[in-house]
Amino acid sequence: MTHTDITTPRDTTAAEVDAIVRGAARAASAWKAAPLAHRAEALEAVADALDAAADRLVPVAQRETHLAEARLRGELRRTTFQLRLFADVVRDGSWLDVRIDHADPDWPMGAPRPDLRRQLEPLGAVLVFAASNFPFAFSVAGGDSASALAAGSAVVVKAHGAHPELSAATTEVVAAALAEAGAPADLFQTVYGTEAGVRALRADEIRAAAFTGSIAGGRALFDIANAREVPIPFFGELGSVNPAFVTRSAANRDVDGIVSGFVASVTGSAGQLCTKPGLLFVPEGSAVLDALAAAGLPEGGPLLNEGIAAGFAASFDRVRGHGGVSALAEGSAGAGPAPALLRTSIDAVLADVHALTAEMFGPAALVVTYADEAQLLEVAARLEGQLTATIVGNDDDEIAPALLAALADRAGRVLWNQWPTGVSVTHAQQHGGPYPATTASATTSVGTAAIERFARPVAYQNVPDALLPATLQEANPLGIPRRVNGERPA
Amino acid sequence: MTHTDITTPRDTTAAEVDAIVRGAARAASAWKAAPLAHRAEALEAVADALDAAADRLVPVAQRETHLAEARLRGELRRTTFQLRLFADVVRDGSWLDVRIDHADPDWPMGAPRPDLRRQLEPLGAVLVFAASNFPFAFSVAGGDSASALAAGSAVVVKAHGAHPELSAATTEVVAAALAEAGAPADLFQTVYGTEAGVRALRADEIRAAAFTGSIAGGRALFDIANAREVPIPFFGELGSVNPAFVTRSAANRDVDGIVSGFVASVTGSAGQLCTKPGLLFVPEGSAVLDALAAAGLPEGGPLLNEGIAAGFAASFDRVRGHGGVSALAEGSAGAGPAPALLRTSIDAVLADVHALTAEMFGPAALVVTYADEAQLLEVAARLEGQLTATIVGNDDDEIAPALLAALADRAGRVLWNQWPTGVSVTHAQQHGGPYPATTASATTSVGTAAIERFARPVAYQNVPDALLPATLQEANPLGIPRRVNGERPA
Repeated sequence: MTHTDITTPRDTTAAEVDAIVRGAARAASAWKAAPLAHRAEALEAVADALDAAADRLVPVAQRETHLAEARLRGELRRTTFQLRLFADVVRDGSWLDVRIDHADPDWPMGAPRPDLRRQLEPLGAVLVFAASNFPFAFSVAGGDSASALAAGSAVVVKAHGAHPELSAATTEVVAAALAEAGAPADLFQTVYGTEAGVRALRADEIRAAAFTGSIAGGRALFDIANAREVPIPFFGELGSVNPAFVTRSAANRDVDGIVSGFVASVTGSAGQLCTKPGLLFVPEGSAVLDALAAAGLPEGGPLLNEGIAAGFAASFDRVRGHGGVSALAEGSAGAGPAPALLRTSIDAVLADVHALTAEMFGPAALVVTYADEAQLLEVAARLEGQLTATIVGNDDDEIAPALLAALADRAGRVLWNQWPTGVSVTHAQQHGGPYPATTASATTSVGTAAIERFARPVAYQNVPDALLPATLQEANPLGIPRRVNGERPA
Repeated sequence: MTHTDITTPRDTTAAEVDAIVRGAARAASAWKAAPLAHRAEALEAVADALDAAADRLVPVAQRETHLAEARLRGELRRTTFQLRLFADVVRDGSWLDVRIDHADPDWPMGAPRPDLRRQLEPLGAVLVFAASNFPFAFSVAGGDSASALAAGSAVVVKAHGAHPELSAATTEVVAAALAEAGAPADLFQTVYGTEAGVRALRADEIRAAAFTGSIAGGRALFDIANAREVPIPFFGELGSVNPAFVTRSAANRDVDGIVSGFVASVTGSAGQLCTKPGLLFVPEGSAVLDALAAAGLPEGGPLLNEGIAAGFAASFDRVRGHGGVSALAEGSAGAGPAPALLRTSIDAVLADVHALTAEMFGPAALVVTYADEAQLLEVAARLEGQLTATIVGNDDDEIAPALLAALADRAGRVLWNQWPTGVSVTHAQQHGGPYPATTASATTSVGTAAIERFARPVAYQNVPDALLPATLQEANPLGIPRRVNGERPA
């Protein structure tokens, strides 16, 4: 079979969606029962297949997303790294959170304590809404799909309309690799079109959904998920302005470093990153402000698609037109809109927090001057939920402890003297935060803890050893870390 | 101060609710910063104070709930055991799920890996809707409050209207013990009245809610929590019929044991337990069926209140009046409705699963005869979500593996040859399950994992050691188990 004739897939029909979710539910039952080692090998097979298909997939991604080849090849490497990392996680088994309490006839609670064994088990068939801005890492074979497959769930992807051909080609690679690795049929399928996505979200067979996108779109889907007769978890990552705060002492330290780091973080990938720092607080009269005004902003690159370009223009115009907001610096329009920095005062922000901390998804940010560091605490306490919040400071800044605490209360990740773009896929990563950053702040969509979203705990009481899952059997044949009678795993 | 003049509290006004949630939010900030050891000591102080107040609280509970003294004293012991267990959990620190990834300049992903440190942090102020059927263990000072305080959150309780005086007296004991232990003011407060509960649920300051009660009431509150401008997690335990399945081989084994165990589990606490087995599947023509028909059911005890009595009567009449349902056994009405067993066939259940697997909250159950064990798998696959599901079987029953797997897919706890009532408070307990058993099947409301509901992960990137929470500092001063660079905790 050759792959030279990739064509744009048509929208999936209602009847097709119904058949797809039924198939996914059947596949989920079989996949749930697959040994952990088999699950891990299948994830690695998918990673190998995607790496092998890079020369075919990357040109399609370039054409559909306008992203540069080097960025896309790096993103594909991240995607396959992520699949292999989840394979390691699956084998390690810590994420199952196995707890075993042996029967205790002398339990002080009046009745004997029964034998109880608890672990996380896969949810079943889940739905993944792909994002537009990472056509590999947050799309068909991205983190949501990888973590759901790792958890033992079956995946239905709703492809993003901005890169349909890449979605079809990626689905073909993933599904073929899974089939080759002996995974059940229909374990991984993709639907196309808004109506198909909504129909799948309402289907009885779908037991959770993950989403990365806009606040408006995400909230609409969240509402559908909750209005179902049987509501399902909706892991939505919606919007974040990712404020950054330069303390007074830091603003006198490394002006060039702050300016170049901030501008690169704002304009990289044409500002289309969910962790782009869209707000920067700097002291009034500081050299940072002058340097930002004088900074040469790069030429504008093309945005991902017309919808994003229109959304960026509208959100930029709203902030730009707000009373008290003026232009600070502007690059030149190239193949896309000119990168721009706007400027306002902290009093203006405090007077209209919602409007002036709104996300502008594109190459722009609002620089806010403050007179008194105490005002930073006032802003921090009133921020909407954020994926990230950043402090540029010195260790002995008097404001640092209180500002860190206030930001940890409003964000999922707090950074010190680094910029928030570039979300590394690691064990300790947290990519999530209070609403509207996400609809499920107790979870992450990046990093190994993302696997927990697609599983739920089940306890077995007094079940004979031979009938227990291997992970719960007394002899611990897989060597999984387990908490036994409350003792930490050995 | 004497406690002889306990009076029924009036409904909390809107202005009072607003002040209470503001106070809770302030208290939450302070409590979050309290050292783990301090938090643990405060929980133990509350347990000690409740134990010391038993002779005062239990008579109030008896009068308001009609539950027997021995049952109430046992329940209070369970409640204080639970508080002390959470103190141990807080000190152990495993639940923080601390993960540390050191900076790695040679990270293979194109950019260096930053230093990342992640742990669970308290949500803030949370709302607990108390239940009526456990006036201690699932009420003011019950598992939800204990786990929220343990997590470092502040608690506002919405008292259950069925035991208002006990609620007020318990609140007084808990708040005084917390104050004595040096906890912040307003850490633990109670509101009274339906409107006050809804107003608190809608308050910006409230960041999560927990509930134990009916499907109708729970769903209404769940919908309110999700419709907020900023939606919050709603941990609702709503309803469950807790099916039990007697295999063909087991039905010929210990007829008396099965019958006495089942009847005790159905009629204990007048059937007002969320894990009461309300459905029993037995083979056609088995001796179990005859023995159940001949079983002497106990005299009916008083139900908790008139609302529950009316709800029980209505749900019982609906099932009793269903085509194909007949009476199997009936006790005598005493101070409450007569315990009763109804009977139908598995074909009738399969023809109307929703109606015939509906919960009857009181001393009744439906006994279902089956011809073919394969029909049990058909029923299991079509069950709504359950807190528990039980198999009475023999280890070598051919049906056992498939039936266990099917029930694990539909329930939070699966039991073998034990009955589901009596939910032990342990590390491996799971009290939760797919909707409508709960609105959040990834969580538990009993057992040590319940603490996780009231916290969310926060990652610190590149933050100087002296500015990190103690639990994340490099030297690990508290000796918390931590996953470092992906390695299992030592």
